Amino acid sequence: MKSYRKELWFDIPTRRAFINITPDVEQCLKESGIREGLCLINAMHITASVFINDDESGLHHDYEKWLEELAPHEPVSQYRHNTYEDNADAHMKRQIMGRESVVAVTDGKLDFGTWEQIFYGEFDGRRKKRVLVKIIGE
Amino acid sequence: MKSYRKELWFDIPTRRAFINITPDVEQCLKESGIREGLCLINAMHITASVFINDDESGLHHDYEKWLEELAPHEPVSQYRHNTYEDNADAHMKRQIMGRESVVAVTDGKLDFGTWEQIFYGEFDGRRKKRVLVKIIGE
Amino acid sequence: MKSYRKELWFDIPTRRAFINITPDVEQCLKESGIREGLCLINAMHITASVFINDDESGLHHDYEKWLEELAPHEPVSQYRHNTYEDNADAHMKRQIMGRESVVAVTDGKLDFGTWEQIFYGEFDGRRKKRVLVKIIGE
Repeated sequence: MKSYRKELWFDIPTRRAFINITPDVEQCLKESGIREGLCLINAMHITASVFINDDESGLHHDYEKWLEELAPHEPVSQYRHNTYEDNADAHMKRQIMGRESVVAVTDGKLDFGTWEQIFYGEFDGRRKKRVLVKIIGE
Repeated sequence: MKSYRKELWFDIPTRRAFINITPDVEQCLKESGIREGLCLINAMHITASVFINDDESGLHHDYEKWLEELAPHEPVSQYRHNTYEDNADAHMKRQIMGRESVVAVTDGKLDFGTWEQIFYGEFDGRRKKRVLVKIIGE
Repeated sequence: MKSYRKELWFDIPTRRAFINITPDVEQCLKESGIREGLCLINAMHITASVFINDDESGLHHDYEKWLEELAPHEPVSQYRHNTYEDNADAHMKRQIMGRESVVAVTDGKLDFGTWEQIFYGEFDGRRKKRVLVKIIGE
C-alpha cells in the first residue's frame, strides 16, 4: 500500500469564498503515483469546508445567501461562542457544507461524474488556512 | 490491496425520491471478495445524495417536507443558478443530506448498526443518474 | 494492509449532548499499530452523529440552540415518523451534523489541524449507543 500527503494553503482576502481546488488535488494524485485507492480531502480548520458541487457562479451566490439565512453572521452577539471571536456562524456553515470529501481513485484519476468539482469553502478568511490531501492505495 | 468499482444507475420518474440501495451495495461487496476494508458510496451527480438512515416511510415524508422548508424549490426565480435550470434547490438539499457515505467492511460484511440502511436521495430526477461504489481492502 | 476495529459505547443520561471522543480514537490508533492510512469514525445509530469541530462550550450551546431551530423537537406531532417514537427531529439533526468522519493517519497520529477534535453528537440519548472506529493502512 502506498500513501501520499500534502497540505494546500489558502489566504483568502474576504471572510467568505468558494475556491475550486480540483486541479490541485489532481496534481497531488499525479505526484502520488497511486492508480487505485481513496483520496481524502479535508479542511484542517473548523470554520472551513471541503465539498463537491458545481463550478457555477450563480450557484455559489445562492449558497452564500442560503447559508447566511440558515446561520446568519449578525448579530454576532446572538452566539455564546462570540466572546473573543465573531465566527460562530462559520462553525455552523461549515457543518452544513461538510468538513471533508472522499473521492475514489480509479486508473490513476479522480473517479468523478461529469460535473463534480472539489471546492474549498472559506467562512472565516483573511488569514492563512490549509486543506489536507491524503491518498492511499496502489 | 484489492479494489473494486461499480456504477449503480437510476432513472427516477419523479423529481424527488429516497431509494434503499443497501442490497445493491451488499451485492457489490460480495462480488469484490473484500473482507476487511472501506466502502465508499457516492452520488456522481451534484443534485443527489447518498446517506445512511432509517428505512421508514414516515421519516422519509418528514425529510421531504423538512428539506423543502430549508431549501424551497419555488419560486425558482429566487435562485441565480436558475437561468436555464430550475434545480438550485436540489444542490442545497444535497448538501444537507451529503454526497457520500463511507462504510467499514468487516469479515466480508458492511459493518452496520441495527437500523443503518444506505439511501440514494434524488432531488432532481426524471433522467438517468448514477452512484459509484468503490471498495478497497483485502 | 492492516485493519483494526473497535466499538465505543455511550449511555448519555440526557436526550442531547456533545462528547469529545478524540482521546478514545487516539487510543484505538495506538492499539492498531497503523502508521499510514485512513481512520473512519461513525455513529452506528441513526439519531447520532460523529463530527469534527471545536471543543468550546459556548459553541456547543450555540449548536444545540441552532439545531433546535432548524429541526425542533416539539411539537412531536408535526412529524409523521413520531407514531410510536418521538425522535424524528434527532434523525434530522444527525443529517446536518453528519454520520461519520474520515481522518488521515500520518506517522502513527491522527493528522489534524490545530483545533480539530472529534465529537459524538447524541440527539436521542438515555440508552446505550455505540460508535465504530475502523482503521486501515500499514
